[in-house]
Amino acid sequence: MVRYDRLENSIYLVEPQKVRLFDSNNKLKLECGRSLGPIDVAFETYGELNDARDNAILIIHALSGDAHVAGRHQPDDRRPGWWDCMVGPGKPIDTDKYFVICSNCLGGCSGTTGPVSINPETQKPWGLSFPVITLSDMVDLQRHLIDHLGIDKLLAVIGASVGGMQVFDWTLRYPDRMQCALAIATTARLSAQSLAFDAVGRNAILNDRHFQNGEYYGSDLTPDVGLSVARMIGHITYLSEEAMHQKFGRRLQYAKDYQYAMDKEFSVESYLDYQGSTFVDRFDANSYLYITKAMDYYDLARQFQSLEEAMNQIACNYLVISFSSDWLFTARQSHEVTSALIYNNKNVTYSNINCSYGHDSFLLEVDVQGPLISNFLAHNQMRMRKGHAYLPASPETLSRTNAPTQTTRRGSIFRGHRVDHWNIAHLIEPDSHVLDMGCGDGELLEILAREKNVRGLGFTLEAGDVNACTRRGVNVIQYDINKTLDFLKDKSYDYVVLSQALQVVRNPRKLLKDLLRIGRQVIVSFPNFAFWHGRLQLLFNGRAPVWKSLPREWYDKPEESVNYMSIKDFELFVENQLKARLVRRIPISTRSGREIQLWANLLADEAIFVISAQD
Amino acid sequence: MVRYDRLENSIYLVEPQKVRLFDSNNKLKLECGRSLGPIDVAFETYGELNDARDNAILIIHALSGDAHVAGRHQPDDRRPGWWDCMVGPGKPIDTDKYFVICSNCLGGCSGTTGPVSINPETQKPWGLSFPVITLSDMVDLQRHLIDHLGIDKLLAVIGASVGGMQVFDWTLRYPDRMQCALAIATTARLSAQSLAFDAVGRNAILNDRHFQNGEYYGSDLTPDVGLSVARMIGHITYLSEEAMHQKFGRRLQYAKDYQYAMDKEFSVESYLDYQGSTFVDRFDANSYLYITKAMDYYDLARQFQSLEEAMNQIACNYLVISFSSDWLFTARQSHEVTSALIYNNKNVTYSNINCSYGHDSFLLEVDVQGPLISNFLAHNQMRMRKGHAYLPASPETLSRTNAPTQTTRRGSIFRGHRVDHWNIAHLIEPDSHVLDMGCGDGELLEILAREKNVRGLGFTLEAGDVNACTRRGVNVIQYDINKTLDFLKDKSYDYVVLSQALQVVRNPRKLLKDLLRIGRQVIVSFPNFAFWHGRLQLLFNGRAPVWKSLPREWYDKPEESVNYMSIKDFELFVENQLKARLVRRIPISTRSGREIQLWANLLADEAIFVISAQD
Repeated sequence: MVRYDRLENSIYLVEPQKVRLFDSNNKLKLECGRSLGPIDVAFETYGELNDARDNAILIIHALSGDAHVAGRHQPDDRRPGWWDCMVGPGKPIDTDKYFVICSNCLGGCSGTTGPVSINPETQKPWGLSFPVITLSDMVDLQRHLIDHLGIDKLLAVIGASVGGMQVFDWTLRYPDRMQCALAIATTARLSAQSLAFDAVGRNAILNDRHFQNGEYYGSDLTPDVGLSVARMIGHITYLSEEAMHQKFGRRLQYAKDYQYAMDKEFSVESYLDYQGSTFVDRFDANSYLYITKAMDYYDLARQFQSLEEAMNQIACNYLVISFSSDWLFTARQSHEVTSALIYNNKNVTYSNINCSYGHDSFLLEVDVQGPLISNFLAHNQMRMRKGHAYLPASPETLSRTNAPTQTTRRGSIFRGHRVDHWNIAHLIEPDSHVLDMGCGDGELLEILAREKNVRGLGFTLEAGDVNACTRRGVNVIQYDINKTLDFLKDKSYDYVVLSQALQVVRNPRKLLKDLLRIGRQVIVSFPNFAFWHGRLQLLFNGRAPVWKSLPREWYDKPEESVNYMSIKDFELFVENQLKARLVRRIPISTRSGREIQLWANLLADEAIFVISAQD
Repeated sequence: MVRYDRLENSIYLVEPQKVRLFDSNNKLKLECGRSLGPIDVAFETYGELNDARDNAILIIHALSGDAHVAGRHQPDDRRPGWWDCMVGPGKPIDTDKYFVICSNCLGGCSGTTGPVSINPETQKPWGLSFPVITLSDMVDLQRHLIDHLGIDKLLAVIGASVGGMQVFDWTLRYPDRMQCALAIATTARLSAQSLAFDAVGRNAILNDRHFQNGEYYGSDLTPDVGLSVARMIGHITYLSEEAMHQKFGRRLQYAKDYQYAMDKEFSVESYLDYQGSTFVDRFDANSYLYITKAMDYYDLARQFQSLEEAMNQIACNYLVISFSSDWLFTARQSHEVTSALIYNNKNVTYSNINCSYGHDSFLLEVDVQGPLISNFLAHNQMRMRKGHAYLPASPETLSRTNAPTQTTRRGSIFRGHRVDHWNIAHLIEPDSHVLDMGCGDGELLEILAREKNVRGLGFTLEAGDVNACTRRGVNVIQYDINKTLDFLKDKSYDYVVLSQALQVVRNPRKLLKDLLRIGRQVIVSFPNFAFWHGRLQLLFNGRAPVWKSLPREWYDKPEESVNYMSIKDFELFVENQLKARLVRRIPISTRSGREIQLWANLLADEAIFVISAQD
């Protein structure tokens, strides 16, 4: 069934496949109430299914994609599959390790049964008599294909754009059929604006002079103009304004100056025209109608009271990726999905990748997306084999002696310094649930997971930190903790850690009140502003303090650095402002590494506080 | 010519007018090289032209607008003119004071000659044989109308969207014909994305089955589908995603649940459909082609090396307004225009109004836009009468004794306190050119203008400050001074003031280096962190200092507050980091209001520094 080869010129050959999963007697029951059969499914596979059958990955294509994800059908094919940058031998989704499956969706026009297929009752193409399908119908057909391939549990279901919406549906309705899920550049439901763009595109097709109520097959005249207008609109939404500006600007395509005629003159016009006209050659107008309609209908929360309630069904580990310049399926929409997963204490990692290509970024961006995906898959395969849902994959215990004391905590202004960090680990009980706000590269969470069987989640804004955390197998969310934390449930964590991050918080009172609501205990560490060194500097030199734990001059601080406070300041703050309970106070000298008992506010240059809400 | 009346039910009646400005012998020369005649212009006027002829305002409509700006033609007209919220008796553009003119644009379909008009040579409608016109051609026709009305110099030219682009063209090519200009929700040239949307719309029209190469007039079959698709696309770009979400969300229009049919089901679909179909009744498809083509062509900088060089031609005072949620003509594009004006030391005020309606905000938002416009017009009318280009309109000299000492400086964390402010005014030479970074409500700049004939420009982020400055007749730019200041030219100001704003600057070194580049002298004032009160607090109490000039606790500062520095800190900073020349140092006690000579770093709670770049 699988046949691939790396030729000398490194061409990766794959073979299209087809299977009849339903026939006229055994039909697929659709969401609309109708049944459909026969159904053929066009699909491709890459790599080999191992004996344990635990290395299978299903990839779901986007609106205009097909089963041909990677490689070439013929050595002289001009272009490889649509995600060739990501899938193949040695690539992030490594076909030397994984068995990858991709099928053309139900209703499509690249081999799987759709409006272009023959209706057995009329012996003519279905056209608009094809039943209106939904993304759930597409998912059901994929599930039958997976059954047919003899795969009980997928390692991963991966999809971008409308493929990502199908990933949500998979994990919601078949939660025990995958170890993990990757939802990329997608949304739980289309926004009104996206519905509007789809509606205009369909309108152009339905009103095309050659649409013939969908019965244009075999005719010389097909609804090319309508379909190409729809595609042009789509294409604008796939690119960011910035990408369009960089790619075309206001350049003229043919002449040096304006022609004062109604012709296309700007490069961007020619580009869209080309996109529209080539699309017509490879795509069916009726399929476009059916698939966009299915997109419009999809709403993850539809059968539930809320997105949160829906996400409670999820059992697998999630990786959610958005792209900063995507204005079709925005970062806000991905964050909404992520929040609903976190709300239900599900395992989720979220990265908002800074990339200027707009929605199309998922097809083009490899440098950040690639490692994220390959690390996430690797950790999940190991977890699947060990039967662990979450714990990091390589539990070699770190001995106390090689605890890192000189590594860098990114995003912190305190470098080369981990005394507070190590002390915090000692405060946390085994088997607990920890939220690390400003988690840096995830080292604390990894140590806690390995040493104390702790299930953790980190928050950071830095892309490098997200990558580092994923490499360690630590769940991490790319988010600014200065924004709302309303999506985190009351008492949903045993400990919330705010380590060397209080200084960069914009509104400490608001944040700490939130953390006291979210965690049973809150552990805060910060440099003591009243350390003797600083007092003397201000007194005798009349200068704002600078010392080891506060190493920057006032004009030279990282942009976010905001707050100076002493141990005494913080104590009064806990008592008077937070009205919280002071559980423990650990003043530290970072020089000796020891806890300071006497004259702490004068002699300690750092402090750790454990606080909790009053009962 | 003018006939208006306020009936008892407050209906404001206006009469459409028409004039033939060109005929077959006397044609208008167009940018494309062709000539056009006869040309009729449909226009309306509101209010009365005064004897001095200095109260005339030209308003230029947007793509689908017409000459009917305000009021009703008949008492029972269902809807008034398109900008009725802004224009009329007692409204922001007050027709009791001003004589307002608006004409339908050349190429339009609401009375002015366009493709629907009869070509005298063929005695048939022009259709696509109408010459391709540009925005400059439209502006030229408007200028002939103004000549015809006997107006030598307009008080203002006002336009939004494509009307705003024509405002740019007016002020560039006829700089002595207006006192001021208002460019609202507009751009100096379309982005590639906007070009793309226009191209798809034209494509839909040109390929409509009933377009008949533009000769559809008199036919039963007109290109309604194409025009309505174009309008639908346009409408999506006029609304923000947020506005669409609030207005429609994913609501279904007719049924409670999905119908699983190809019909329109979502409310947003019905809305767009309605917008498309009603537009067809009032607009001509050929006009749509011609006007969008003219928009696409327009590029303010086209005949110049750069936008900066183009803006050097401007002689009038500018008010530029953008809306935060406008993604068609973005705030960035308005800022680009504003920067080019500032670069040339032109008088400009810029406001980015926070409003969620998208591009359509200019039609709907009145609360902020209204006062901005009315204040700007009032000051400019007084300046026009006095022959001043810039100075505030009511130059009653403020005596020293009523200098405000207890008023609030908005945007500053130091309230009820103006000692440093008053001291700064004393440092500035008459007739100079002053940039006030973080200008608050513009009081310093107003005092300087009145007392010292200073021409000033303020920067602030606060909408309230922008409004207050406009009320005072002070030029102000809504901009975050933490962002790039590259658009400000070297040594373009005699003084740059940074008064009580250094504390909230993210990168003081970068900003001050920029200010030293921009101004011949830089005047900085800030609270002294080494004031004795604070030193003793930290020494004896071990707490971060809090006193009169630093009134907030560490957890309770405004979000942006970042920097603490003492007089000594700042001196060393000027010497070692800025490598600048210390011109003057004025330590102040805000309690006594006096300059402190001895032990300044201990006894002064505020300080003013004058510095300049080393020669």
